[in-house]
Amino acid sequence: MEKIILNEVRKPRLKSPVLVGGLPGIGNVGRIAAEYLVEKLKMKKMWDLFSQFFPPQVLIKENGEINLVRNSVYYKKFRDKPDLLVLLGDSQSTTQEGQYEISHYILTMLKNVHVSMIYTLGGYSTGRIVEDPRVLGAVTRKDLVPSLKKSGVVFPKGEPGGGIVGSAGLLLGLAKEMFSIDGVCLMGETSGYFADPKGAIKILVVLKEILDLDLDLKELQIKSKQIEEITGRIQEENQPYSPSGEDLGYFG
Amino acid sequence: MEKIILNEVRKPRLKSPVLVGGLPGIGNVGRIAAEYLVEKLKMKKMWDLFSQFFPPQVLIKENGEINLVRNSVYYKKFRDKPDLLVLLGDSQSTTQEGQYEISHYILTMLKNVHVSMIYTLGGYSTGRIVEDPRVLGAVTRKDLVPSLKKSGVVFPKGEPGGGIVGSAGLLLGLAKEMFSIDGVCLMGETSGYFADPKGAIKILVVLKEILDLDLDLKELQIKSKQIEEITGRIQEENQPYSPSGEDLGYFG
Amino acid sequence: MEKIILNEVRKPRLKSPVLVGGLPGIGNVGRIAAEYLVEKLKMKKMWDLFSQFFPPQVLIKENGEINLVRNSVYYKKFRDKPDLLVLLGDSQSTTQEGQYEISHYILTMLKNVHVSMIYTLGGYSTGRIVEDPRVLGAVTRKDLVPSLKKSGVVFPKGEPGGGIVGSAGLLLGLAKEMFSIDGVCLMGETSGYFADPKGAIKILVVLKEILDLDLDLKELQIKSKQIEEITGRIQEENQPYSPSGEDLGYFG
Amino acid sequence: MEKIILNEVRKPRLKSPVLVGGLPGIGNVGRIAAEYLVEKLKMKKMWDLFSQFFPPQVLIKENGEINLVRNSVYYKKFRDKPDLLVLLGDSQSTTQEGQYEISHYILTMLKNVHVSMIYTLGGYSTGRIVEDPRVLGAVTRKDLVPSLKKSGVVFPKGEPGGGIVGSAGLLLGLAKEMFSIDGVCLMGETSGYFADPKGAIKILVVLKEILDLDLDLKELQIKSKQIEEITGRIQEENQPYSPSGEDLGYFG
Repeated sequence: MEKIILNEVRKPRLKSPVLVGGLPGIGNVGRIAAEYLVEKLKMKKMWDLFSQFFPPQVLIKENGEINLVRNSVYYKKFRDKPDLLVLLGDSQSTTQEGQYEISHYILTMLKNVHVSMIYTLGGYSTGRIVEDPRVLGAVTRKDLVPSLKKSGVVFPKGEPGGGIVGSAGLLLGLAKEMFSIDGVCLMGETSGYFADPKGAIKILVVLKEILDLDLDLKELQIKSKQIEEITGRIQEENQPYSPSGEDLGYFG
Repeated sequence: MEKIILNEVRKPRLKSPVLVGGLPGIGNVGRIAAEYLVEKLKMKKMWDLFSQFFPPQVLIKENGEINLVRNSVYYKKFRDKPDLLVLLGDSQSTTQEGQYEISHYILTMLKNVHVSMIYTLGGYSTGRIVEDPRVLGAVTRKDLVPSLKKSGVVFPKGEPGGGIVGSAGLLLGLAKEMFSIDGVCLMGETSGYFADPKGAIKILVVLKEILDLDLDLKELQIKSKQIEEITGRIQEENQPYSPSGEDLGYFG
Repeated sequence: MEKIILNEVRKPRLKSPVLVGGLPGIGNVGRIAAEYLVEKLKMKKMWDLFSQFFPPQVLIKENGEINLVRNSVYYKKFRDKPDLLVLLGDSQSTTQEGQYEISHYILTMLKNVHVSMIYTLGGYSTGRIVEDPRVLGAVTRKDLVPSLKKSGVVFPKGEPGGGIVGSAGLLLGLAKEMFSIDGVCLMGETSGYFADPKGAIKILVVLKEILDLDLDLKELQIKSKQIEEITGRIQEENQPYSPSGEDLGYFG
Repeated sequence: MEKIILNEVRKPRLKSPVLVGGLPGIGNVGRIAAEYLVEKLKMKKMWDLFSQFFPPQVLIKENGEINLVRNSVYYKKFRDKPDLLVLLGDSQSTTQEGQYEISHYILTMLKNVHVSMIYTLGGYSTGRIVEDPRVLGAVTRKDLVPSLKKSGVVFPKGEPGGGIVGSAGLLLGLAKEMFSIDGVCLMGETSGYFADPKGAIKILVVLKEILDLDLDLKELQIKSKQIEEITGRIQEENQPYSPSGEDLGYFG
């Protein structure tokens, strides 16, 4: 079989689109943010990607139907600003080769539809619960830094120490070296112990400003508070916490 | 070498065949059920599949002859209903890439002989010994659910939680997305601690009805009771159990 | 680079040659036996095989020269009987894919020079020190069994239980299914705890008879006794044993 | 994507160049030495190599810019002696296949620019802190030994016991067998517990003589003493040591 298979669900005409990528990862921060964008902006699915670099697995919907593990790209057309694409997925590639192949494939497809800018979202693990999570940034070109700082993104020296591992970093690295596409990585602080909407909200606040989005964050703020209450209670009881539910299922 | 090598042992003319797949897995439930079908229905071998995605291993028969690890497809022709194919094997692929490649290859071959429906069999691990195992279902298309429910298959919300991993799920996921073949996964409950014919019997009861098979389950019921007695005794003696013998060898 | 690279050191004209294969493995039994054949029969090197399926490593000779890890085939021409080939090597492939690719490649090359029979040598781990090791057999065709039994090879029911893993088994499995070459696996019992010439001697006694070889086993018997004395002493002192030296280096 | 991608930053005309290779490894000895050469000789970058055999990772510079993990080759032209190339990198390949592919690829490129001699640098782990580290050697051709001995390189019998694992060995092994390029491996003794400039200095003393380089080692000697003081103090306090900082980051 082909190592990566693309299913073009729709073929919209796009106007200088910008991509936001949020795959599962630390604290699931990136995915929660990206998923919220897709839901609240009522984005439509454009592509499904299947690959032998994903786990050999199907997920089961509530009605008993199976769904092969995939990555998907959604789109939203705007009248007065660049169109928006969002990359969502059930899983990152589980192999190093796959990380490169999938990222390179997606970038090739994005280049075809003239994507000029990429925002990848991720979590930055602090190892402890953070009251007021920061949003850390990393860029493909240093002159992108000043305007991000104005939007509240921080660039602390030496953080994250080991660089960025996985698709959030690799999409930017390959975009810079091989596709001449600019990009920014936005990392929301999180304990990393559970699916954490708090860092996701902070990232969305930044994105909302940068991309001038009409986005109501109330729902996610409510969910975040619920989780905070549960984890707070559990912390007091000194027990490990494992949430469940459809939206938070990756780490539940 | 070719990554997958097919040896066509026989080339029967098949009439709208249905496939039942039972490879080694949790409690070996799927394989026990499929193997029982092949033996009791005196099915003939059609294909042998060898592959570098299988363990680099030969098995040794009682007469000292070696046999390269393989997957095989058996067939049975019927006068008055769709012909039956059964997929059996010594092993699933041991790599993620191999899981995709093998499943995709088998589906390509099945499409060539116009298979229209696939039933994959597996175990559903409960982590404890089950008195009366349920048969859980998952489908490629939701309108397959009602008739399965009538045959006693259950679709409990949120089970199995993590989806279906391995060939039982992947064959269906690829069948749905890339081959337009319908499919059902039947999962028999099992503790998962030993090769477990009890769940296999329950699956066969369902299959017997769906496929209108003339199948005597007595032999498997006797074997199941023997195992129950042994494991019951061992549980009392509080010792780990490890059965042996040709039929149950995978987990023995 | 090519995944497997053959360097033809010499191109002898061979007469219906027979191959004996002894790569590193359990108790290093097969390799010790094969290496002794090459040395005592003063065999010449015919092929060197390099591959990315071998460890990324060079070995260092006493004079400081490096040698890339390899498998090699040696030959000896006889006037009155089939010529002899011996497969020796620094390592088996370390990956499953590599095990298949290397074995298949070697068989393709052997078929080219009309090899009609393969003997693979290996160890059979007993987990305890054996006074008088047996030689167990496995064959590609059951009518090879009787004459092997006459030469002292045993075929105990259910042994080895899990089949044969690695090149000793795979060479025969692929030879049988894809090359129509007959083969025998000879397994010398060994504790498996150290490089063990004792089982190798027993295998060579069998091979000497089957292949009608003029082979003096004295040297290996002396080495075996030395090791027995050391390991015996160590057993008494109740300490783990780790031999060293050029010949026994794989497990030392 | 291509498995290995070369970016030719500059295309200098080179005169019978010699390569020095120092990738991350034991005690980071090879990399520290090679990096010091590049800095002190003000070498210019010639090639960037990206590959799916490297970790799927970007590193972050102090200004917030990301850099895709890579290997690079730098050059320095001399009037009166062979030009110098240095191979530096963020990482070795993390897979066995990748080790072979990357080394083979680099050798192919080096052959194209007529490299006639390769020096690979590495650490030789002693497992304890060494007062006066030796420089051990290994060669592709034994007549390279005498002149190396004169420069202080030692070739102790049986050391390093297991040969040389990774790119320092493989570059030489492949150079010898497939490219007819001569080579030497220089291994500086190190405890292997931290990034260790002490062994690197000893290697550079040897290289300086062999390649007749105008190289001031003072800076590295100062850094080495600083580290010695810190590790000495820590040893006294009986605590594990983990240095940090840009230059020593690999093992920090």
